[in-house]
Amino acid sequence: MKLISVVLSGGAGTRLWPASRQAYPKPFMKLGGSALLEQAITRGQACGTDDLLIVTNQDHLFLTQGLLSDMADPPRVRYLLEPKGRNTAPAIALAALDCQAAHGDDAVMLVLPADHLIPDTEAFVANALEAVRQAQKGRLVVFGIQPTSPETGFGYIEVAKLGRDVQPVLKFVEKPDLATAQEYLATGRFYWNSGMFCFTAGAMLAALAQHAPDVLQAAGKALAQSTSQAMSLPDEPNPPHVTRFHAHSFGLQPDISIDYAVMERADNVTLVPARFGWSDVGAWPAVAQAHTPDASGNTLGAADGADWVAVNTTGTHVHVDSHCHKVVATVGVQDLVVVDTPDALLVTTKREAQNVKRVVDALKERHINSPHHQSTLLPPAVHRPWGTYATLKEEDGYKVKRITVKPGQSLSLQYHHQRAEHWMLVHGRGIVQIGDTEHPTLPGQYHYIPLKEKHRLTNTGPDELVLIEVQCGDYLGEDDIVRLADTYGRS
Amino acid sequence: MKLISVVLSGGAGTRLWPASRQAYPKPFMKLGGSALLEQAITRGQACGTDDLLIVTNQDHLFLTQGLLSDMADPPRVRYLLEPKGRNTAPAIALAALDCQAAHGDDAVMLVLPADHLIPDTEAFVANALEAVRQAQKGRLVVFGIQPTSPETGFGYIEVAKLGRDVQPVLKFVEKPDLATAQEYLATGRFYWNSGMFCFTAGAMLAALAQHAPDVLQAAGKALAQSTSQAMSLPDEPNPPHVTRFHAHSFGLQPDISIDYAVMERADNVTLVPARFGWSDVGAWPAVAQAHTPDASGNTLGAADGADWVAVNTTGTHVHVDSHCHKVVATVGVQDLVVVDTPDALLVTTKREAQNVKRVVDALKERHINSPHHQSTLLPPAVHRPWGTYATLKEEDGYKVKRITVKPGQSLSLQYHHQRAEHWMLVHGRGIVQIGDTEHPTLPGQYHYIPLKEKHRLTNTGPDELVLIEVQCGDYLGEDDIVRLADTYGRS
Repeated sequence: MKLISVVLSGGAGTRLWPASRQAYPKPFMKLGGSALLEQAITRGQACGTDDLLIVTNQDHLFLTQGLLSDMADPPRVRYLLEPKGRNTAPAIALAALDCQAAHGDDAVMLVLPADHLIPDTEAFVANALEAVRQAQKGRLVVFGIQPTSPETGFGYIEVAKLGRDVQPVLKFVEKPDLATAQEYLATGRFYWNSGMFCFTAGAMLAALAQHAPDVLQAAGKALAQSTSQAMSLPDEPNPPHVTRFHAHSFGLQPDISIDYAVMERADNVTLVPARFGWSDVGAWPAVAQAHTPDASGNTLGAADGADWVAVNTTGTHVHVDSHCHKVVATVGVQDLVVVDTPDALLVTTKREAQNVKRVVDALKERHINSPHHQSTLLPPAVHRPWGTYATLKEEDGYKVKRITVKPGQSLSLQYHHQRAEHWMLVHGRGIVQIGDTEHPTLPGQYHYIPLKEKHRLTNTGPDELVLIEVQCGDYLGEDDIVRLADTYGRS
Repeated sequence: MKLISVVLSGGAGTRLWPASRQAYPKPFMKLGGSALLEQAITRGQACGTDDLLIVTNQDHLFLTQGLLSDMADPPRVRYLLEPKGRNTAPAIALAALDCQAAHGDDAVMLVLPADHLIPDTEAFVANALEAVRQAQKGRLVVFGIQPTSPETGFGYIEVAKLGRDVQPVLKFVEKPDLATAQEYLATGRFYWNSGMFCFTAGAMLAALAQHAPDVLQAAGKALAQSTSQAMSLPDEPNPPHVTRFHAHSFGLQPDISIDYAVMERADNVTLVPARFGWSDVGAWPAVAQAHTPDASGNTLGAADGADWVAVNTTGTHVHVDSHCHKVVATVGVQDLVVVDTPDALLVTTKREAQNVKRVVDALKERHINSPHHQSTLLPPAVHRPWGTYATLKEEDGYKVKRITVKPGQSLSLQYHHQRAEHWMLVHGRGIVQIGDTEHPTLPGQYHYIPLKEKHRLTNTGPDELVLIEVQCGDYLGEDDIVRLADTYGRS
């Protein structure tokens, strides 16, 4: 038997704004020392999985691959790259077809959303292996979470009685209103639907064929028109296998959840009650709960360099982005959440933190053509396959950027129509190509890139390379770039 | 008769932290479009004053002079520069001696603290001229504010009965506790002491001689050891007259208030009831009150580029420093004050805003040797006689600064032992001197300043010059500067 970890990595980055963004959603947020996505992968590895399949948006490939290559034991990955966000039924159908093709009908799929927090891996593994045994009997297994409050943000699963044992599912129900949720809680017969599943590829494909043939058929067509290849990345000992879809055939797949398409209808669904602590980190209060509070119930989620002075402050969570080096002071406040990033600041109560989504909506509407709109889209530091860049200052006529390049990586060979660039290397070592000449460069050294001159930056040292770039010109948009050659297939 | 505006410009910058700092206290805060100090000067000018005397800390000379030279009608100023903060009795004694020497005993002094907000200048002028008439009769005049609440932050003045007319003062009392303040308010016989006064130099000196001879004597000694000169500043049509004190003799002056030294004891004190709106802008709620609220009672104190999304937010004041270009979002909060600057963020309730002082105390204690300490001392942009600088990024081995130079101004001719500098001019035009060569420089042009090479930057254009500087070296402290020549007498 092969055990496959199927990690669903997505999200709109709205409920944990401004720390999460559309281009940097929840799976990439660090909580408890590592990104939630990394934790999901590690959790699967701990179960002894033989292969890792990540279903994610194509825009997140390099960010994901960068995160994986920084792991102590970087796994080999198969990617299914979605051209746009789709629901869980298409994602799981595609994953099941992929697993069947690669490992046969008996391959057991352990489906893990990439944005859950499960601190106790050992407890999870014991539970997961129980689910695997059920899956091998042909069951469709769902992990149920014993409810602690009448949450309206989860689907619910009805069984005969809450307990510690595996039992058949009586009914799946959608996200309830508050009154219904309270009713469910009172009966002692309802679990929260965790969104974690386990089944063989064959069982899932049979269930899809029976209950949602349109989903299965559309997934088959999308896969038939996809292209698959092992990616060649420089200095990558474990090149990932990547499947890309055509936007059209991919988009023809129905936008429905696996709960609705299959779980509500199938009669072979089994529930494994979770015997581990679990959070879907749905809003800022859940982030606060993942931190150890001080004597006043305050929690600090911050990188080094953050410094918090709390006067008459209780139950408050402060999150300072690693790119903000500043003092945060709170005076006379209770149960607040304060999140500071270089381009956006959020102050909310824990009680109303779920309304942060409305801020993102308002910003999208208000600023569709403004630079502030990007605070809903882009993270303060933009991740690229070769490293990162962050804008330090932008005014009429110039822009100052801090650029980092990973060891062994290169920016594309490129030129700009409307801007000249001053480059100062301040950390690491590299080669700056200008025109056809390559200049070995050390910290403190400077290069001038004239308008329309081709140029390229490569890190040739063992450490991260850091460059300060001052762009001068009338137009400084990111789209003024002509790529002549690119290691990452973007030219 | 000569009328002299005596502006007392000081403050520790603690209660409006982090917008105000020790090096950038309340008088420099803009409120209603201009700095409070500028408003105090304009208010005096509107009364037809013949001369302007500013008593301020010597560290604030260039900042003050820069503010004045940006005024539409820059006044000619006499400065009394205090080596350290002293109380109001020494300041007024020195000012009275200075006025007597310059204009004789009959000169009328209108004493105005530089950090008050009085929106209606016309009403103020009518009141002030009434005070001047009383002063000419030899009275010591204090402006009383009719109390609206039992404030514990003000001294109180007892009269026979609150009213619209000038009347003799019965008693000065110090800042009361809350119960006493409530009692005062109930009697209808107490005014707040505004700290604004009016008297002739002769009357004040006579009162000092009678009630506080030690203060008068110490002030005389401090003046005897002071040095006075007209400052020569480039392109300054109205060079200020500056009196500097010796730290020792200045420090021998008693640290007491004019209220305690004179007003409580003299029997010729007259109260002029203020018939104008007044605030001493003592804490953030007072700043909020100076802004026009929206329908939800929210107020925004911000430069251009600030953008606030308020969801379920009422009675909240948001202040965004002009160097922060960011979105601020508040969700589900009431009666908060949020103040964001590049290096410090404050979140407090209006109710507890007076405790912000405790944050500054805590920071001073905690960070006496840390870079964060400077958030209590230095403003985000540091003001120099020639312009400003702000640090955009600082990491091991390098620092990126944005430097502005005013038209006609020059940095000192200087060199550094431990750092080389890359200079990129991005706005305006100037001359860069490196060694003995002068290079005319336009936007987009670059210069390299090697270690130990003398260099100087001068703005030769009509607009502000903006330069991006990247410093490289092992030590990048502001103290690694050897000044060879300086327009401002600092070499």
